This record gives sequence, structure tokens and C-alpha cells, in this order.
Amino acid sequence: MMREPYGVRAEGLPERVTIYEVGPRDGLQNESAVIPVEVKAEFITRLAAAGHRVIEATSFVHPKWVPQLADASELLAGMERVPGVRYPVLVPNERGLDRALEHGVQEIAIFGSATETFAAKNLNRTLDSQFEMFEPVVARALEHGLKVRAYVSMCFGDPWEGPTPIGQVVTVGRRLLDLGCFELSLGDTIGVATPGHVSALIEAFGGPSRLAVHFHDTYGQALANTLAALREGVTVVDASTGGIGGCPYAESATGNLATEDLVWMLHGLGIETGLNLESLVETSTWLAERLGRPSTSRVVQALGPKPAR
Amino acid sequence: MMREPYGVRAEGLPERVTIYEVGPRDGLQNESAVIPVEVKAEFITRLAAAGHRVIEATSFVHPKWVPQLADASELLAGMERVPGVRYPVLVPNERGLDRALEHGVQEIAIFGSATETFAAKNLNRTLDSQFEMFEPVVARALEHGLKVRAYVSMCFGDPWEGPTPIGQVVTVGRRLLDLGCFELSLGDTIGVATPGHVSALIEAFGGPSRLAVHFHDTYGQALANTLAALREGVTVVDASTGGIGGCPYAESATGNLATEDLVWMLHGLGIETGLNLESLVETSTWLAERLGRPSTSRVVQALGPKPAR
Repeated sequence: MMREPYGVRAEGLPERVTIYEVGPRDGLQNESAVIPVEVKAEFITRLAAAGHRVIEATSFVHPKWVPQLADASELLAGMERVPGVRYPVLVPNERGLDRALEHGVQEIAIFGSATETFAAKNLNRTLDSQFEMFEPVVARALEHGLKVRAYVSMCFGDPWEGPTPIGQVVTVGRRLLDLGCFELSLGDTIGVATPGHVSALIEAFGGPSRLAVHFHDTYGQALANTLAALREGVTVVDASTGGIGGCPYAESATGNLATEDLVWMLHGLGIETGLNLESLVETSTWLAERLGRPSTSRVVQALGPKPAR
Repeated sequence: MMREPYGVRAEGLPERVTIYEVGPRDGLQNESAVIPVEVKAEFITRLAAAGHRVIEATSFVHPKWVPQLADASELLAGMERVPGVRYPVLVPNERGLDRALEHGVQEIAIFGSATETFAAKNLNRTLDSQFEMFEPVVARALEHGLKVRAYVSMCFGDPWEGPTPIGQVVTVGRRLLDLGCFELSLGDTIGVATPGHVSALIEAFGGPSRLAVHFHDTYGQALANTLAALREGVTVVDASTGGIGGCPYAESATGNLATEDLVWMLHGLGIETGLNLESLVETSTWLAERLGRPSTSRVVQALGPKPAR
């Protein structure tokens, strides 16, 4: 069994990529069984030990919407923090920002929608009025010296409106960046993107500056889409341990791009990540046991312990 | 639920790709439970109805090695043939060729190894002496007007020798083409390739002429590798329904690149395949029921009927 890929560089790709690990937040948020806060804390500790330098830890979205992360305060109070590792927290509004400030959070992430229907369903706003919600959050966060990342959901299509017009995504994205966000994560929330669409969107932004990508593997396209983004010069890629997570609007066994499969490709391309693949597989295996189901990551399936047949 | 991808073309990719469907042969050959010949015949009929124009039907490898395909004669005698569809058969040696000729087969595929160890284990030959076995097979096949495809296994690495030197793959591949094979399928038998390695190998052949690619999804890289091959100009891609199959030397839940996931990407890139995705998903669902386990294709998991949880 191969334990590590062979590195063969491809021309025109970045030397180094930062993986923005969303497992503890985006990954866990849709889990129905309650996961103890100690498990979440250990998960985060393990991720940092495997070499992660950005770990989205939790969310201050109201527990009515995301009951799994109702323990955000408790987690932030108790979890280990490794110097040099960023632990951003998702924040939906000013109340969320207040709580983040109370806990000494240094980086937050806000989330907008690229489509009218999803803005209505997820934010109870219009495409335009969502910014009234973001403006005071970002302004106050910046005043307090926080870094603010912005997610845009449904950048390639949504279940109601079909394909999202590229110009519309660029407009929403630029407005978020103009508020002062340092990074914009382009989300394929329902996993419908294909590589040409990815390239076209990044080019419509005028290149990769301040862009990150966030792919879901609903139709198996996440890694190919990532390759297209790397070719456009993107150097920040969102992924989740074992591919956990997913969008409740995209019914599928698969969720986010699995960190382990991404790392296999990046290391195979000779791109540095700072991550230890074996530790990642161990952590993913450990997490799968706690979630009570096998990882959807192909790498974990290949390298982790084999389930009984 | 999205039923079809949006087409957004990427520059520099082929207009049209031929999918070489290996499900009935490479896909089924490692199944332990015996599959009735009627099911195999119906599988092939369904594949043609979904638009496939090349379906590798079965193999004349000795039943001692591949008991699942011991019914090759019976299948070839009874299966439906659609005009315009190619139904190649895998042939290991002259005895296999005799049987293929008896059944009026018009296209065969032979299989070589890119590494010394796999040549010994799979063919009981050396890297050099394997050609003594191929030469008379190809010569006689061509005399009878047959087309001959050649597979090369372990083109990127094998479990014993590590990475396969690119020059060695090119030497083996050229010798096969020089025998008169019309197409060379570069096989990543254990799924270890990454996109830069794929590009480098195709470039070492001097470009995509007469090359096909055959990726396994052991580490989740098959579709990203395919994208790299398309960028090099390759227009023939091997895949199997529902991702069935795999190499007994690569223990993993996953096998070949799943045809449905490949078609999603190709159609998303605006590349013609002649295939109907909905029919493919139906056939994959039908096959998964007969095999008694869910498809590993993400597209089938997303679009097919949901398993009970």
C-alpha cells in the first residue's frame, strides 16, 4: 500500500497552498447526533498537531439553526490553542460578533449568498439587503483588530435558480471584499461546479488575489475543480477532515472536499502544505469512529483500517 | 437536485471524448459472487442504450485466473450487438485469440506491464520477454483484420518498486504501438498518479496521439488526473459504471474511475460524449442492486435512489 504520493510537479501551479480546515465547523454542523465538546476540542488539537495552521473552530449562529454548535462558548473557553495557528469562528451578525469578542477570537468569518433565493432562505434577506447585516459586523470587527473572511454560498448554482450568473457572484464578492474582508471563499454549496466554470469565475474576478475556493464533492468534482483553481493561481483551499459536512439543500452522502484527498493531490504535485498525511488519516479514522460511520475520503478508505466486510 | 451539470467550456480541451467503458470486463472481473450471464448481457445492452459506443465485453483470460468471466463464450454467443458499437474482448495469448476469432470478435485488447515485478506476477514474464507473448497475438489478429488495443499496467507506480520511471513506460508503450496496436491505454492500476505525473508521462510520449488513459480512484485522484490528460489532448478515457472494479493489489473500496462522475465533468466542460447521464445513473443503480452494494460513484449517490439509513 502506498502511504504517500510521488511528487511530480506540474508547471504553473503554486509552490505552497494553505488548507483552510472547516471540519470542526462546516463539517460537524449538520451532524444530528450530539458530539461532546471534549471530542470537538480533541479534534481541533489533533488537526493542529497534524500541521494545520487555519482551523475554523465553531460558529456563533443561533443554536436554533445549528444545535450541534450550541457549545461554541464552552469549546472556545476550553480548547487548546497552538501559537501560530488561526482559529476563525463563523459569525452571522452583531450578536455573534459580541460573543466572539467576549471570547478573544482574533479572526471571524461571515457568510453571504450569491443568489436571491438562498439569501432569502438562509439569511432572511434579499441579495442586496444582506449587506446591511454585514456592514456593521465587519466595521466593528475591523475596529477591534480582527481579520474577517467572507464566504459566498451558491457561487455556481443553487437548487432553485439553476446556474448562478458569474457577474452576480463577482458583484456580491466585490462588495464583501470592499467592506474590508481579507479573503473571499467562493462556495460551491451544492457541488455542481465543473472546472471550466471555476476558471471562468476566477478570471471574472480578475485573478486569484484574495480568493479561496470551497468545493463540495456532491458529484465527485471537488478535486478536479480545485486543480482548475490552482491553475488560476488560487493558494487557499477549504476542505474538511474525511469529507464530512455538506449542505442540507444538497442531499448526498458526500460533503466537503476531503482534506486527505486534497493533500494527496497537492503533495503529488510537489506543492507544500505543511501537513502530515499520516496524522491526517489517523485523525480522520478517529473522527469516523466517533461519528459512527466510515470516512468518505478515498485516501482514508485506502490507508485507514479496513472496515469488516 | 441538479440532474445535469451546466456546461461552461474551458479553453484548450477536446470538443469530444470517447469513453471506453470497462465495466463488464475490468469492473466485474474481481467480483467474488457469480453474476449470471443474462445479467452481464443485459448490462451490455443497457450500456449501448445509454449511448456507449465502446464496451469491453469480457475476457479470454483463463478461468483459473478470472473465474467471474468463465462464461465469455456464452456471453459473446448470446449478447445483443448494436450496429456501430465496438465490443472489444481482452485476450492474453494465442489461445485467447483463437477463441476470439471463433466468436467473430472484431477488436481485442492485450495487456502488458510497465514494471518488472508486475510482469512477473501478472504475466509470469520479464519486462522484456512479455513481448514474445504479444507479438504473435498482435500479428495474427492484424492478419484477420482485427483492431488491437494495448493496456499498460502500473504506469505510475507499483506496490513493489515504487514510482515507475517515465522512460520505462514510454519504452514499453512504444513497443506495443510498434507491434501495430491502434491505441495504448496508460493504466494507473493502483491509483497513485497525480496530475503533474500524468502530464509528464503524456508529454514524454510526445503528445496524446493514440493514447488513452485508465485511472483508478484509490486515492480519489482519477477525475483530476483525467482533467490533466484532457489538457494534454487525450480524447479516449477508460471508465467503469459506478466505479466498479479495481486491482487486487490495491486494497480499497474504490475501483475504476466512475463513468457517471466522468460524464458529469465532461458535460460540465461542454465536451460531447454521446452519453445520456440519466440512463447511465439508472444502469448503475440497476447494477448496484445486482451486486448487492451501493455504487461508489458520487453522481449515482446524489442522483440515484437513496439507500435507507
